[in-house]
Amino acid sequence: MPEFDLIRRLQEIISIPSQGDAAECRVGIGDDGAVLDIPGQCELVVCTDTLVAGVHFLNDTDPFAIGHKALAVNLSDLAAMGADPAWFFMALTLPSEDRAWLDSFAHGMAELAGQARITLAGGDISAGPLSITITALGLVERGTALVRSGAAGGDLIVVSGTPGAAAHALKKLRKDEVPAPSDRVALDYPVPRLKLGHELHGLATACIDISDGLFADLGHILERSHAGAEIELEKLPCPASLRELSDKERWSLQLAGGDDYELCFTVPPDSEEKLAEISHSCGVKLTVIGVINERQGVALYTGGGDLYDPEFASYQHFDPRGLHTSD
Amino acid sequence: MPEFDLIRRLQEIISIPSQGDAAECRVGIGDDGAVLDIPGQCELVVCTDTLVAGVHFLNDTDPFAIGHKALAVNLSDLAAMGADPAWFFMALTLPSEDRAWLDSFAHGMAELAGQARITLAGGDISAGPLSITITALGLVERGTALVRSGAAGGDLIVVSGTPGAAAHALKKLRKDEVPAPSDRVALDYPVPRLKLGHELHGLATACIDISDGLFADLGHILERSHAGAEIELEKLPCPASLRELSDKERWSLQLAGGDDYELCFTVPPDSEEKLAEISHSCGVKLTVIGVINERQGVALYTGGGDLYDPEFASYQHFDPRGLHTSD
Repeated sequence: MPEFDLIRRLQEIISIPSQGDAAECRVGIGDDGAVLDIPGQCELVVCTDTLVAGVHFLNDTDPFAIGHKALAVNLSDLAAMGADPAWFFMALTLPSEDRAWLDSFAHGMAELAGQARITLAGGDISAGPLSITITALGLVERGTALVRSGAAGGDLIVVSGTPGAAAHALKKLRKDEVPAPSDRVALDYPVPRLKLGHELHGLATACIDISDGLFADLGHILERSHAGAEIELEKLPCPASLRELSDKERWSLQLAGGDDYELCFTVPPDSEEKLAEISHSCGVKLTVIGVINERQGVALYTGGGDLYDPEFASYQHFDPRGLHTSD
Repeated sequence: MPEFDLIRRLQEIISIPSQGDAAECRVGIGDDGAVLDIPGQCELVVCTDTLVAGVHFLNDTDPFAIGHKALAVNLSDLAAMGADPAWFFMALTLPSEDRAWLDSFAHGMAELAGQARITLAGGDISAGPLSITITALGLVERGTALVRSGAAGGDLIVVSGTPGAAAHALKKLRKDEVPAPSDRVALDYPVPRLKLGHELHGLATACIDISDGLFADLGHILERSHAGAEIELEKLPCPASLRELSDKERWSLQLAGGDDYELCFTVPPDSEEKLAEISHSCGVKLTVIGVINERQGVALYTGGGDLYDPEFASYQHFDPRGLHTSD
């Protein structure tokens, strides 16, 4: 099947009709580029992320899940910017023409694209080792994007959901053990926190999505905000499947496991009531886990008030282990 | 070197200061996404293209050339839309941390980015088999993008430059022969026809860039325009290095070789004088090679007026030969 048929096939499966109002796609798939109409009061937010087989997902992962996740990790970046999804572009590199694989992949992507109301507006297909690069475009009202640089001393540090489950699943899979079903779902079907990102406009002072691990990603907020942080480890919201682990193992998965696609953000000190409202309206658990200070780096405290030395580093690319793992 | 350092290193080398007027990058590299300010009278054009090692370039290609070409093929798509380059996003998958390779790659890209005044606004780096996906964003005045669908019966078919040289170089390299220097330059350093694309506003009725070969790419114009074409093979503008070849071999390289990144476009019948002016102002050879008709498909005629059966197909992805080749 030549490239054009593949693209058409993907288009048949994935394309969501444009929703008309903010995001009109005047020329879509089938030209050298898409032509996108931008309303005057908006800014455009653009994110790009690649998934490589054997690096970002195990080679035997269900293609439906790969399709979901390739889009989800990009939508998670849009969520972390507070942007509303508009269009995405996909560069797909495939080792062979496996129609069943491609259909399943496309259906996984289409399901999420429909939920997120984002339109596939173009792409490219190449022969080569399996990898998927998506570039997602979103819109925000001018000047309102959630960036990493606004955290200030006294701000509360908040995390959505219960980080650690995806890393726990991956750790089991790498030892040829069967992960808990809820952990496997967390690994394969991360839920981009788009509604939460939207609701955080006017409240969050800084925001990031957790892909490399809470510790490393909070570090990016601190670096861009020229600030430090104190985290109370006992407050980390824990997935049920991690409750039986030792503190050390659990904290390692929750802080350095990565692949969570939850949001970590900061809010002014008096925001607890507003957080409860947003948590309720979005149906997402929100937990204050610490506070921003004017020092440097992240200080982790145990329940007893002792400083905890994490003994882990954030996930590093070019690690010979290849995949995210946590200890 | 962790991902963040790699990105910073690339940013140091590649980032071109925003040119201020049309294309302001309010938040660039270092957040979850870039925030791009779009002036109200413009539309956004977005293109994405991947280069995979061993498929789109030979494994021993100079990294400086790879950096140039990865951006050039995307700029060529913007040129074919008549869009002015604004920002690009790069997803880079690298098998190892080869600092010298990366620097050379980035410098090759930076040189072209500077010439084209396009700003690197974000990206992603992964470990894996070498491939580069670029998503390029450009701007056009509302409603003026050059699309593929406007060719009408009687329109002249025009090609820029002298297609065939890149395919000739690749054919030699695959036989372990040394290509002519001019052919090698055509293969490794294609020149995106940005100024030409810009000048074609208000004249061209349809436009495409030649990546898969003139025959296949003209076919896309015909398909989208519901039209046919007659080509006079003797009019194909010939690179000097192809003059010694047989007609059959030369036409095969010129029509089906691909990798030319010239523009193929259509103009109304009385446009010869305007074409001469544009050719002069852009410093690019423009040749009328045929005419659009209201039938279907491409009819090729020899100098003697005989219908020529090309015996080639356009380049097909998933061809086991892997790389573009022409006969």
